[in-house]
Amino acid sequence: MLVEVRVKLKEQVLDPQGEAIRRVLSGLGYGEIEQVRVGKLMLLEVAGTDAPEVRSRVEEACKEVLANPVIEEYEVRLP
Amino acid sequence: MLVEVRVKLKEQVLDPQGEAIRRVLSGLGYGEIEQVRVGKLMLLEVAGTDAPEVRSRVEEACKEVLANPVIEEYEVRLP
Repeated sequence: MLVEVRVKLKEQVLDPQGEAIRRVLSGLGYGEIEQVRVGKLMLLEVAGTDAPEVRSRVEEACKEVLANPVIEEYEVRLP
Repeated sequence: MLVEVRVKLKEQVLDPQGEAIRRVLSGLGYGEIEQVRVGKLMLLEVAGTDAPEVRSRVEEACKEVLANPVIEEYEVRLP
């Protein structure tokens, strides 16, 4: 089953990478792009057909490895 | 308007970062996670209310800055 994990910086955490991209875009004439936040998109191929079980395991993996819960938040999306 | 840009490596491009994550997960007992592909999730706050115009500008920005069209593919999602 293809599972999508979205990892974003928490709202209150500064995103210097996003700000750098915004500045570059602005310099190229994309001034209407007023904010950029950069996160990670992880696409996992997971064996198993029991969706709640797969979700629960992937959420565990997020907590343990895929996201840093101090500064990031994650979301798991199943098909 | 909040616009989501998803940048993924093209199917045929190797993803060593994803493979490294998969290996770590496997070592931690998540053997059922058989493949990991890592992409970028960019959330843009864009001034403007004309959705087709916003989409077209963000797609331009993807081609010019946000994605590397040689190895990556992008997708623009509007609300």
